[in-house]
Amino acid sequence: MSIYQAPLADMRFNLFQLWKVQQFWSGNNILSERIEADTASAILDEAGKVTAELIAPKAQLADETGVQWQVGNVTTPEHYKVNYQQLCEGGWTALSGDPEYGGMGMPKSLATLYEEMMCSADIAFSLYSGLTAGACVTLLQYADETTKQHILPRLYSGEWSATMCLTEAHAGSDLGIMRTQAKPQADGSYLISGSKIFITAGEHDLTDNIIHLVLAKLPDAPAGSRGISLFLVPKFMLDTNGHKTELRNSLQCGSVEHKMGIHASASCVMNFDDAKGYLLGEPNKGLAAMFTMMNYERLAMGSQGVGAAERAFQNARLYANDRLQGRVVTKDANKADPIIQHPDVQRMLLTAKALTEAGRSFSVYVAHQLDQAKFGEDQNALAVASLLTPVTKAFLTDRGFDSCVMAQQVFGGHGYIKEWGMEQWVRDVRIAQIYEGTNGIQALDFAGRKLFADGGAAIQQILQEIAAGLSVSPQPALSELLNQYQVLIGSLAQQKEALPSLLQSHACDLLDLTGYLLFGHMWNKTLAALGDCIEGEEFIASKRQTADFYFSRIMPKAYGYLHIVQQSLSAINPSLI
Amino acid sequence: MSIYQAPLADMRFNLFQLWKVQQFWSGNNILSERIEADTASAILDEAGKVTAELIAPKAQLADETGVQWQVGNVTTPEHYKVNYQQLCEGGWTALSGDPEYGGMGMPKSLATLYEEMMCSADIAFSLYSGLTAGACVTLLQYADETTKQHILPRLYSGEWSATMCLTEAHAGSDLGIMRTQAKPQADGSYLISGSKIFITAGEHDLTDNIIHLVLAKLPDAPAGSRGISLFLVPKFMLDTNGHKTELRNSLQCGSVEHKMGIHASASCVMNFDDAKGYLLGEPNKGLAAMFTMMNYERLAMGSQGVGAAERAFQNARLYANDRLQGRVVTKDANKADPIIQHPDVQRMLLTAKALTEAGRSFSVYVAHQLDQAKFGEDQNALAVASLLTPVTKAFLTDRGFDSCVMAQQVFGGHGYIKEWGMEQWVRDVRIAQIYEGTNGIQALDFAGRKLFADGGAAIQQILQEIAAGLSVSPQPALSELLNQYQVLIGSLAQQKEALPSLLQSHACDLLDLTGYLLFGHMWNKTLAALGDCIEGEEFIASKRQTADFYFSRIMPKAYGYLHIVQQSLSAINPSLI
Repeated sequence: MSIYQAPLADMRFNLFQLWKVQQFWSGNNILSERIEADTASAILDEAGKVTAELIAPKAQLADETGVQWQVGNVTTPEHYKVNYQQLCEGGWTALSGDPEYGGMGMPKSLATLYEEMMCSADIAFSLYSGLTAGACVTLLQYADETTKQHILPRLYSGEWSATMCLTEAHAGSDLGIMRTQAKPQADGSYLISGSKIFITAGEHDLTDNIIHLVLAKLPDAPAGSRGISLFLVPKFMLDTNGHKTELRNSLQCGSVEHKMGIHASASCVMNFDDAKGYLLGEPNKGLAAMFTMMNYERLAMGSQGVGAAERAFQNARLYANDRLQGRVVTKDANKADPIIQHPDVQRMLLTAKALTEAGRSFSVYVAHQLDQAKFGEDQNALAVASLLTPVTKAFLTDRGFDSCVMAQQVFGGHGYIKEWGMEQWVRDVRIAQIYEGTNGIQALDFAGRKLFADGGAAIQQILQEIAAGLSVSPQPALSELLNQYQVLIGSLAQQKEALPSLLQSHACDLLDLTGYLLFGHMWNKTLAALGDCIEGEEFIASKRQTADFYFSRIMPKAYGYLHIVQQSLSAINPSLI
Repeated sequence: MSIYQAPLADMRFNLFQLWKVQQFWSGNNILSERIEADTASAILDEAGKVTAELIAPKAQLADETGVQWQVGNVTTPEHYKVNYQQLCEGGWTALSGDPEYGGMGMPKSLATLYEEMMCSADIAFSLYSGLTAGACVTLLQYADETTKQHILPRLYSGEWSATMCLTEAHAGSDLGIMRTQAKPQADGSYLISGSKIFITAGEHDLTDNIIHLVLAKLPDAPAGSRGISLFLVPKFMLDTNGHKTELRNSLQCGSVEHKMGIHASASCVMNFDDAKGYLLGEPNKGLAAMFTMMNYERLAMGSQGVGAAERAFQNARLYANDRLQGRVVTKDANKADPIIQHPDVQRMLLTAKALTEAGRSFSVYVAHQLDQAKFGEDQNALAVASLLTPVTKAFLTDRGFDSCVMAQQVFGGHGYIKEWGMEQWVRDVRIAQIYEGTNGIQALDFAGRKLFADGGAAIQQILQEIAAGLSVSPQPALSELLNQYQVLIGSLAQQKEALPSLLQSHACDLLDLTGYLLFGHMWNKTLAALGDCIEGEEFIASKRQTADFYFSRIMPKAYGYLHIVQQSLSAINPSLI
């Protein structure tokens, strides 16, 4: 029952008028050879078709079907196999891969919009190829040349897929205490033993082989997170030419989890029993290597929030235009108006719309920083992307969840019924707030680790950018919030020495505050870019209305968080909770 | 896996030290005959046993089993039949019923705590007896004496159950456009035809008979909501002595809905095909009669929010004490502390705790106002209860949902897995924000209809109460918020004439703002009552810590909403959403 159309006009606007990525592309040695605005537009159009026509219509069927586990094998919904083949044949699994190994080498700013569409279409399905793309980033950086030549082309083609095996039953956010062991062998390989849980796509029937990236400890490893190494562990062993053999490695999927949502994503218990593995990168430096992948995934998580919210919003808007209840315009007691006429329904829809569109702008912004860092070797851009990665992951998924709940609410009782398809988005997107590092962990990363790193250079750079945006497009409400935020940051920088737990205690509130401020910046930059917009009068008028709603009806929430983080802390006694 | 213990100490504290209901009871002619503090305490203890030991342990089984529909019959989980019988035998279905017809006549302030425990134990199960209790309130007021004598004792005993049949597929929040028809018959009865949806407990196997309260239109009825009448429509016809016969009325359950949660609650499509019914109350005055029941249910909805959050919180606290991740106290890199040591986990737990305990105080407060209105004929108390009914329904369920989501988040990935039982509470409590009038409808009732009724007498009375509380127990943060709220209310009262859509547009934000203010009042009254508290040092210290957390880390959110409702409104063009 649930519709979806890719928001292509807004995606083009974001790339070409708002962030003007084509200017960077054309001036960059590498990207100018690979991509230009017209090609990017055509790729977006095609991605819009694949996701909206092929994948999106069967997301509900996938939810109902789920995955089935039987003696170590995992069966995905029947249509996943067909759609996955189409994805591979269309080259979509290679979109951001390195051209040296068969990838298309597209910039992240474009790839992030494809990822959003995939998540709008079917979050569970998106994970099979999504995690593979992340694993490739780590392999590209840490694998030796032969391994890259053997494995990357098959991951880019979608012939094989990949996983990240971090979590153990007793070690989730705290990887330092993991128990999986790696025993060195005479031939330079290792035997990996241990049990990993929550392994997305750990076992499934979509690809011929699965390449596991596994964190484990060497016998002489230092304690804690400084003693973790990363290993490549294939499901089927490869021969010396890198071809898959029929020899199965000593690892098995012990079961799949029964979850609140993303039912068709296989969340596997993976048991490694002296499985043969190969060290990636240096011994005991595995966490950093894995974080190359994790950071990639954390940005992709933001796209899950935006993608889910976009789809939920589109359906809520359609319903609000169709559903007749109450009288706003009509005076006939036997008739009723579409509920979109009611101010409170408008509030719910515009809240979801304003947060989703700002989230999209934010994704493209951060992705573009990553492109500038990667292709332009811009260290400032890298610092900004690093600071904003946890904000992207947490704020976009939290607001994505809020938006899905609000879109469900527009449906009234029908929103609670499975048939209408709205409750699935609430259940599915809920995981994005949890996995790849809970949003609380993101907040600690943001406030505790990154905010004041380098003397706060990155946040100051961002604040200057907001101020520069205001000088072009004055927005009193945003100016006022920016001023108060600047004062706060100055005050926190001083207090953090005296009270180290302050930033930990206020981390989530501080992240939310920062998110509302930055979304204000997104909307202000949007207003400034509307002069260049070529998407038509209605598009422009809609943007103006939504921006106005954001500044007057959403952004003021920031003052709640501002009040909270200005409070001094009392000591908390855990035994009294 | 999910634990539950009834929070009896806090319930006693709320009744006897915080709101001192026993003083009203002992001074009241009717209640002094029925109840005293010791009896009430014993009832709470017993309710705590029944709900925690009998019902709560099988809520997860009920979720997995759900209800089954077959050719008009609905089967509930096997253990529901056993537990329902126990509930009846213990007299729990008669708790707040009128003693003249076999009820126990307990005050609402006590009954609301029983309802909370039932919702903590199993929301789906609680609905079978919960709706019956609501229907009895309407029958008591609108049925003739013979009907009351025939039906009420069997509803109080739990032998029969009752429903409220309002919603039709095209008529949800807007009952005025309903189509169900009632044709008058020569014998004074009516033939009811039409189809109702979302009828909770419309058909099931727990009772011998089901009494449907059905809204329908008479042939000559005025258009809209002024033309709706209320009918009593039994599933099995009664003989002249009020005994159930084997003659089935012409009505049937067409199907049950598949829902996000409360799987074991039968949400039925009910088809009435010339079913025999009897008018309740006056023709065309059915909506008012049904609202007697609706208002009762709306307060009970608040208890669903509190009950779900209480259970989710208890489990999250237990998990946070057991789960070892990260190092706060310990310095050993191979060890880890319970996550309750982490400031951000403390934030999540204390947020859920502060909102849940304030929600409980709020429920008892409003219920006590209803008791004072009913047993003491106190018109001021009635006005306060009427104003706060929509706040109870919306704010307590919204914060209950937030708290369940937060408690789920404490579990990290395990919170998303069905086995741990946390995701069920998120799915189950979500419906409480939707049914019995969506929370948006509640906000319109509060801000649009009631806030400025009688020149705002009720809200002024409440604000004076808050001020009086502050004079006993000074709390600068609450004083400041109260002052700003008073200014706002004055300003809104003036603007509402000029801009009628203002209160509709800001209704939800205004309700949230009011809720955070009133929860501040709850915590301030709690602090003032701790001097009388006899629940022990630890209880008192825990209350102080939680109150402190509320004032410094939760209540400031009100300033976000305050900023929003102070904004002037721009006209919204729905076609640009």
